[in-house]
Amino acid sequence: MLEALKEEVLQANLELPKRELVTYTWGNVSGIDREKGLFVIKPSGVEYDKMTAQDMVVVDLAGNKVEGDLNPSSDTATHRYLYNNFANIGGIVHTHSNWATSWAQAGKGIPAFGTTQADYFYGKIPCTRKMTAEEINGEYEWDTGKVIVEAFADLDPMQVPAVLVKNHGPFTWGKDAANAVHNAVVLEEVAKMAYRALNLTPDLAAMDQVLLDKHFLRKHGENAYYGQK
Amino acid sequence: MLEALKEEVLQANLELPKRELVTYTWGNVSGIDREKGLFVIKPSGVEYDKMTAQDMVVVDLAGNKVEGDLNPSSDTATHRYLYNNFANIGGIVHTHSNWATSWAQAGKGIPAFGTTQADYFYGKIPCTRKMTAEEINGEYEWDTGKVIVEAFADLDPMQVPAVLVKNHGPFTWGKDAANAVHNAVVLEEVAKMAYRALNLTPDLAAMDQVLLDKHFLRKHGENAYYGQK
Amino acid sequence: MLEALKEEVLQANLELPKRELVTYTWGNVSGIDREKGLFVIKPSGVEYDKMTAQDMVVVDLAGNKVEGDLNPSSDTATHRYLYNNFANIGGIVHTHSNWATSWAQAGKGIPAFGTTQADYFYGKIPCTRKMTAEEINGEYEWDTGKVIVEAFADLDPMQVPAVLVKNHGPFTWGKDAANAVHNAVVLEEVAKMAYRALNLTPDLAAMDQVLLDKHFLRKHGENAYYGQK
Amino acid sequence: MLEALKEEVLQANLELPKRELVTYTWGNVSGIDREKGLFVIKPSGVEYDKMTAQDMVVVDLAGNKVEGDLNPSSDTATHRYLYNNFANIGGIVHTHSNWATSWAQAGKGIPAFGTTQADYFYGKIPCTRKMTAEEINGEYEWDTGKVIVEAFADLDPMQVPAVLVKNHGPFTWGKDAANAVHNAVVLEEVAKMAYRALNLTPDLAAMDQVLLDKHFLRKHGENAYYGQK
Repeated sequence: MLEALKEEVLQANLELPKRELVTYTWGNVSGIDREKGLFVIKPSGVEYDKMTAQDMVVVDLAGNKVEGDLNPSSDTATHRYLYNNFANIGGIVHTHSNWATSWAQAGKGIPAFGTTQADYFYGKIPCTRKMTAEEINGEYEWDTGKVIVEAFADLDPMQVPAVLVKNHGPFTWGKDAANAVHNAVVLEEVAKMAYRALNLTPDLAAMDQVLLDKHFLRKHGENAYYGQK
Repeated sequence: MLEALKEEVLQANLELPKRELVTYTWGNVSGIDREKGLFVIKPSGVEYDKMTAQDMVVVDLAGNKVEGDLNPSSDTATHRYLYNNFANIGGIVHTHSNWATSWAQAGKGIPAFGTTQADYFYGKIPCTRKMTAEEINGEYEWDTGKVIVEAFADLDPMQVPAVLVKNHGPFTWGKDAANAVHNAVVLEEVAKMAYRALNLTPDLAAMDQVLLDKHFLRKHGENAYYGQK
Repeated sequence: MLEALKEEVLQANLELPKRELVTYTWGNVSGIDREKGLFVIKPSGVEYDKMTAQDMVVVDLAGNKVEGDLNPSSDTATHRYLYNNFANIGGIVHTHSNWATSWAQAGKGIPAFGTTQADYFYGKIPCTRKMTAEEINGEYEWDTGKVIVEAFADLDPMQVPAVLVKNHGPFTWGKDAANAVHNAVVLEEVAKMAYRALNLTPDLAAMDQVLLDKHFLRKHGENAYYGQK
Repeated sequence: MLEALKEEVLQANLELPKRELVTYTWGNVSGIDREKGLFVIKPSGVEYDKMTAQDMVVVDLAGNKVEGDLNPSSDTATHRYLYNNFANIGGIVHTHSNWATSWAQAGKGIPAFGTTQADYFYGKIPCTRKMTAEEINGEYEWDTGKVIVEAFADLDPMQVPAVLVKNHGPFTWGKDAANAVHNAVVLEEVAKMAYRALNLTPDLAAMDQVLLDKHFLRKHGENAYYGQK
């Protein structure tokens, strides 16, 4: 079942080491079939160069494994929480990519300092609050999803398709698995730029709203004019 | 038409990912035929590994598309403004290369701290002023060219073939497309060196004018003695 | 003798340049056969691309060379001290990997700022005390082992499989040679993240103990649930 | 003439881009035949991937070109000054390698913070004084040699085989051309480590003399015991 989606999720997972976003097995990608209510996710702790489409695990939105010989990623419950709460996302990526993770460890969101960020993220990329001992010792992976969704109380996840989980690392998403990986690559680039910009000007303010609007909206929404569309 | 120039511009564009100056499609190169008053530029949002010489778009200095099936780069009006105002340039490059963009985000020009910069740039590489809301909401890409030219009121663009657009990223130029890419590579190197030098000595002063003169002039102008010429 | 172990130690040594942890010959890996009380170690100053399994040197726990035409690594006495004092380790790695060595030069241990570290190290990675003139001029390499073991007076080396030797560089270990290299790779990643996190938030506190427990224990010990086991 | 030396110098030059120490043509290596009093040096401004042994230029210690169709490196006079004043060196390298050049731009020598430096350099790597307008406008490349030699008034160039020329970049040397390149690689590594260590501990002191002695002398001099010799 879902053979095309499995292949798509496999390819998206393989893009992570190619783009140097993961060390060893520190990352996972999933993609969802919204009509069937099923998502496909990388198995836990399997090496990228040995992974096949048949190793991908099919899970339903209630958390049941529907198909697959291997255990799904240990972060599956986080993916599931996000699919249940962000209605329009079609793919999710989690990595420990070095620059984004450094911001997450520092407990800081990434301010929008320039148009590279504005082309993809409509403002600051938020960092979640600290998780409580109850959340950590309880349904940890599920509640990781919960603190992410909390951070988007006033944000549209399709306009800011990334988050930093405090003391942990980034999650990104998109219209499908490949697009979520694309956003993970961009996140790493803007995390690097923002770090360096802040080092050059420690009290640096975010870019003006008018420039943020211009860049985000020339690539997204009904008045977009970038590319060949 | 302009088949040789299209090939030259294609090759210059392909040099950007090879030199690790672009992520995805974040860059564009153009080259001009001054006699004909036409320039050739990369199409908008097309992936580098699929681009051919026939995808290049021919535009005139009034902004009309003269040949090409695809839309030209969304930054075409900036290139056009620069060709109209910098009479001697033959090629232009725009990237979001990480180090130069970090300086642009920080809103700071790159001081000349050493001979690597002096070999190519006759002094500080300027950063443009903030654009106004009117400019951003009006003819944004055209006015991006305008603020660049403003920053060169007292500078010769052939002596300082690069600029940082505030909150955006670098533009470089040169006698042709390949030379403009060469300057983009050098800019990234000096952006990196200057960042690190400043971190080592936070109140670092620019190099002496006499050393700047020596290095720039031994490679440029009528008394140059570097290389095989 | 110990042909399988020699091959394993060779492969672990070759992994160092592949993972960009060594420049020239600045690293060495050993692996032990606990039943025989013999360990196999890289020869001193031999280039990685010329090394064969037959070049590996066999040494006993009293420091006698048991087999091999070449001199063992100049750090052999340090490896021996660690095998004698850390009963459960099966492999040891020493490198001058750039990020970990920078922390060692700074004389600082690496605090646990995030889950990447917590997945492998149960807390801060310690830095040894300064060695005395007597130790340096006496049995230097042996006493390097001694100051490492001192730093683990209150730590379980299997829970924190790495150390920074002050003004020198890192040693890591693990259940075998390959696992020790794996930990050397992870150490370099967390050294990089912690440096950057600290630059973003200079007074950054370590992660909460409850989160450290969660991540370390979901991958290690009897209640582990990560991977396919 | 000197065919073996030309080949050796060519190979040493080609090692520079391979080790990522140069961008474009920003580097040069020479090697000397002390008996004949002739040295072989890279031609000026020639691309590495087109260079052959026959392009190498032979120069005598009085500065006369003895053989070669091309102009020698514009830095030839600096090499010549060093060969004339440092009697035991057999090869010289000049690069603008990014980390070492950053220190040179900052006008700071690299303190010995750890054993990686001590294994190759017997203490701090000095930075030259600022050159005067007379020196810059006079025999600039020759006087670059002069300020280098001045910085070694109290240092043995064979014990500290590198220097940073202020506002310019590094020169390294060694017993032959290949060894000088080896030292250029090590310099870049220690420049990187020292930068990071200093960022972690801004008031960091140099390593103890006793540890510096131990590491330098276990690899150099008559009591050396590192490697297979």
